[in-house]
Amino acid sequence: MAKTPKESLTIFTDIVLPGESNPLGNLFGGELLARMDRACSIAARRHSHEIVVTASVNHVAFNNAVPVGSVMTIEAKVSRAFRSSMEIYVDVWVEDRESQVRSKVNEGIYTFVAVDKAGKPVIVPQLEPETTLEKERYEGALRRKQLSLILSGRMKPTDASELRKLFIG
Amino acid sequence: MAKTPKESLTIFTDIVLPGESNPLGNLFGGELLARMDRACSIAARRHSHEIVVTASVNHVAFNNAVPVGSVMTIEAKVSRAFRSSMEIYVDVWVEDRESQVRSKVNEGIYTFVAVDKAGKPVIVPQLEPETTLEKERYEGALRRKQLSLILSGRMKPTDASELRKLFIG
Amino acid sequence: MAKTPKESLTIFTDIVLPGESNPLGNLFGGELLARMDRACSIAARRHSHEIVVTASVNHVAFNNAVPVGSVMTIEAKVSRAFRSSMEIYVDVWVEDRESQVRSKVNEGIYTFVAVDKAGKPVIVPQLEPETTLEKERYEGALRRKQLSLILSGRMKPTDASELRKLFIG
Amino acid sequence: MAKTPKESLTIFTDIVLPGESNPLGNLFGGELLARMDRACSIAARRHSHEIVVTASVNHVAFNNAVPVGSVMTIEAKVSRAFRSSMEIYVDVWVEDRESQVRSKVNEGIYTFVAVDKAGKPVIVPQLEPETTLEKERYEGALRRKQLSLILSGRMKPTDASELRKLFIG
Amino acid sequence: MAKTPKESLTIFTDIVLPGESNPLGNLFGGELLARMDRACSIAARRHSHEIVVTASVNHVAFNNAVPVGSVMTIEAKVSRAFRSSMEIYVDVWVEDRESQVRSKVNEGIYTFVAVDKAGKPVIVPQLEPETTLEKERYEGALRRKQLSLILSGRMKPTDASELRKLFIG
Amino acid sequence: MAKTPKESLTIFTDIVLPGESNPLGNLFGGELLARMDRACSIAARRHSHEIVVTASVNHVAFNNAVPVGSVMTIEAKVSRAFRSSMEIYVDVWVEDRESQVRSKVNEGIYTFVAVDKAGKPVIVPQLEPETTLEKERYEGALRRKQLSLILSGRMKPTDASELRKLFIG
Repeated sequence: MAKTPKESLTIFTDIVLPGESNPLGNLFGGELLARMDRACSIAARRHSHEIVVTASVNHVAFNNAVPVGSVMTIEAKVSRAFRSSMEIYVDVWVEDRESQVRSKVNEGIYTFVAVDKAGKPVIVPQLEPETTLEKERYEGALRRKQLSLILSGRMKPTDASELRKLFIG
Repeated sequence: MAKTPKESLTIFTDIVLPGESNPLGNLFGGELLARMDRACSIAARRHSHEIVVTASVNHVAFNNAVPVGSVMTIEAKVSRAFRSSMEIYVDVWVEDRESQVRSKVNEGIYTFVAVDKAGKPVIVPQLEPETTLEKERYEGALRRKQLSLILSGRMKPTDASELRKLFIG
Repeated sequence: MAKTPKESLTIFTDIVLPGESNPLGNLFGGELLARMDRACSIAARRHSHEIVVTASVNHVAFNNAVPVGSVMTIEAKVSRAFRSSMEIYVDVWVEDRESQVRSKVNEGIYTFVAVDKAGKPVIVPQLEPETTLEKERYEGALRRKQLSLILSGRMKPTDASELRKLFIG
Repeated sequence: MAKTPKESLTIFTDIVLPGESNPLGNLFGGELLARMDRACSIAARRHSHEIVVTASVNHVAFNNAVPVGSVMTIEAKVSRAFRSSMEIYVDVWVEDRESQVRSKVNEGIYTFVAVDKAGKPVIVPQLEPETTLEKERYEGALRRKQLSLILSGRMKPTDASELRKLFIG
Repeated sequence: MAKTPKESLTIFTDIVLPGESNPLGNLFGGELLARMDRACSIAARRHSHEIVVTASVNHVAFNNAVPVGSVMTIEAKVSRAFRSSMEIYVDVWVEDRESQVRSKVNEGIYTFVAVDKAGKPVIVPQLEPETTLEKERYEGALRRKQLSLILSGRMKPTDASELRKLFIG
Repeated sequence: MAKTPKESLTIFTDIVLPGESNPLGNLFGGELLARMDRACSIAARRHSHEIVVTASVNHVAFNNAVPVGSVMTIEAKVSRAFRSSMEIYVDVWVEDRESQVRSKVNEGIYTFVAVDKAGKPVIVPQLEPETTLEKERYEGALRRKQLSLILSGRMKPTDASELRKLFIG
C-alpha cells in the first residue's frame, strides 16, 4: 500500500553548541552532515518499518553558515520509493531569535536501503506525493538515481533514458 | 603556480570505537560523513593555503559497512581546482588485522571553497594531475561541477556542454 | 500580547545510539535529562524571543527505559508564563519500528527565565492555553511554582494559598 | 542493616571545558543535569550494592552559572531509603582559583530504584542520618515522596498525611 | 608557605559507559589517560592557585582493564613541588558493586607547570609530605625529574647525581 | 620474520576543533594523550597482526601548545619489539596554514602488549630498524624498558645492566 511523504516527516530541532563548531564559530560541516543523516534514516524507517542503512549521499549544498547559538531545524521526508531503496529530501532552517523568521541554510538528498537482519534488501511501500513540491521532487528522483548509478560506474550514460531527455531537450 | 594532487594528500587512520557505532554494530553513516569532511577540508587547505569551507557534497557511496574495532583509513586529495573552489576525492579503506589486506568501503566527492577572513572567495592554485587515476578524476570534475550546478538549479541542463556530450554520445 | 502553547512547540526526533547508553543497553538517564533541557530551552526561547537560562527542573518521571536503537521523540511546549519565568512541559515518546505505535516513556517539567545580555530578567508574553490538556497544565503551574518556592526555602507552606486548597480540600 | 549517608558519599571533581558550554560561555544546563545524575546513581549503588535506575528528578535549582574553565565539584549522598527506592541529595560547588573559596551553585534531589537483572525492584538497607543537615534532609524526604506521587497522579493530596501537616500548620 | 599533599587531593568518581569503551568492552586506554590528566591538572591548580599546563607524562602503568559498567575513582595529589613545576601522582581504583572492595587498576605520574596569562612560568609553594607514602613519593620525585630531563636530552646521565647513586649503589 | 618500522607507520591528520580545547584555546592535554594512544595502538596492531592493549606510557613531553584551528599530524611507528611487548614512538606536528611549514609540538613513547582473545600475551615479530633515527630509538628502547621496570618496582636498579652503563660512564 502506498504511503504519503508526510507520514515519514521527521523533525529535529536543536541548538548549535560551541563544542560542535568550526574555528570560524559556525556549525562544523561534517557535524551537520551527520545530523542530516540521522534525520533521513528515521524518515526512511518510518516509511518502510524496516531496518535501514545509508546507501549514498547524492547531493548536499551548503548555502549559508549556521552560527553557534542558532536554533536549527532539520526536516526530512521520503521523496520517492524504489524497490528497496528510498530517496530522502532533507531541508535545514535556522530561525532568528528576535523575529522568529526561518531562513533556509542547507538542502540535501540521501538514499537509504531497507534491509532484513541479515542485511538483505527488502521491498518497501511505494510513495504517493501530495503537494506540488513533493511531486516535483518525486519526478526528479528517477533522474537523480540514474546519475548516481552513472557516477558509481554501474550504468552507462547512454542507457539513462530519463536523464538523456534533459540534455537533448 | 600549479600544484600536484599528492601535495594535498591527507591521511587519517583511526579505530572505530563502540561509541561511534549504529545499532547493527557498524560505524554510523553520519559519523563517517563527518570524518570524510574533516579530511577533505585539510586537503583543500593544504592545496590553497587558505581558510576553506564546505560548499557541497557531490556524491558519497556506502558500499560496505565498517564494523566496530576496524582500523579505517581515509585518504583525501584535491582532484581539480577551479577559480576559488576545489573538488576533493576521498577514499575509505578498512584493513584486516590478520592479513593486513585493505579493502575499499567507501568513496566520496566533496567541494570546498577558499575564502578570506570576511568569507569572500579567493583564487586558488591550479592542479596538475600526475597518475592515471588522478587524470581520470580531473577529467570528470568538470562534468560533476555542471551536474552540481544543475541539481542546485543554477544551470540549465541544455547549457551543460561538457555533460551533454556524455548523453548524446 | 498573549501567545498560544503551540507557537512554542519544539520537536526533537533522534535515534538512540550505543554511545549514549548505560550498561543495561538503555539510554542513559542523564543523557535524556540533557536532551529534554535543550528542547525546553528552545520552546522558552520561541515563546519569549529572548535569551533563556534553566532556572529549575521541577519534576521528571522516568516511567520506561529507552532501549538503544529506539526512535525517540521529545516534544516541549510552554505551559504557563509568569513575569519573566516560563514553565515548560516536555513529553517523551518512543515509537515501535514495525507497528509505528508511539508509547510515552517520560514526562518532565522545567522552568526557564528570560534574561537580557547582562543576565537581568526581562518580561515575557503571557500564555493562552487552547486544548484541554494545555488548560489543565496551565492551572497546575501556579501550585507547582509555589511548591518550588517552598522546596527552595523561599516561601512558607502556610503562605502557599493555591497549594493549601489542595490539601485542606 | 542500616547504613550512614557518608558511606554513599560520591565526589566528582572536574574542569568545565568549552565543548560543554552554552552560547553564554557557561556550562550547559543539560550537561550539568547529566553529571548530577551520574554522581547520584553511584551514591545509590554504593548504598544498595545493587543495579540502580533513575526513577525521578524531584527538584533541581540552578542558582548560579558555572563559567567555562571553572573547577566544579559534585557531591551526592543518599538522604533517605524507602523499600526499594532511595532519595539522593546532590550539591554542586565551584571553587575560585585564586582564593580557593568554594561557592554553591546548584542543588538537586533525585530518586533511584534498586533492581535485579530482570528489572524487578529489590529491597535496600535503611539509612541512619548522622549530621544535623542529614537529619533535616531525611525528615523532608517523606514529604517530598508524597509530593512526587501527587505530581505523577499516583496519590490524592488529601491522602498525603505528612504533607498536609505542613499546610494546615 | 609550604602546603600539604592533602590540600591538593582531587577525587573524580564516575561510571564507565559503553561510549568510552574499546572493542574488548573495557575503558579505552586513551580515554583513561585523558581523565587522569584532568584530575592531575586540578590538583596542580589547587596547590598553586595558578593556571597550569601539562608539561609531561612521566609514567603510567596499566595493570588491569576497567570493564564497562565499573565505578572508577581517580585520586590525584601533588607529590613534589619544584620551582614552577609540580609532580602529581594519580591512582585509579575500581570498586566491586556487591562487595564494595576497591582494587587498584592504574597509577600515573604527570608533571604540570604553573604559568601566568602570558604563559610565563611562575613560582609555586613548596610541598611538605605527611604520610609515609607521600614521603616516599616526594623522595623519588627528584630522581624522576632527572630521568625526564635525560629522556628529553636536556641533561647528561653523568650529571644526574641523585639518579647515579641508585645505579652505583 | 622481522619487520621494518615503516611497515607499522600510522598517520593521523586532523583539525583541532573548539570542542576539544582547554580554557586557553589550545588542544586539551588529555585529549592529545588519547589520540596518541589510538595512533600507537594501530601501529602496534600493524606490526603484530594481533589484538593489542596499552601497557604503559613511558614518556610524553608537551613542548608547545596546539591552538584551536590547527592541522595536527600524529605519526606512530614501532621502535622496538620485545617478546610480546612493543615500544612505539609517536611524534606530533602542527603545520602552518600559509607557509605549510611543520613544527614538532610533542613526542611520546608508549608500550603495548599483543594478546590473544583470552588476554594472554603472544609472541610478536622482531623489528629491524632502517634509518639512523630508527636505529637510535631502537638502541634506547632497552634502557627505557629497564627504567620502566624500575619505576614500577619490578626490577632493582642495580640489576639494570644496560642502564647502569649510562651512569657509570
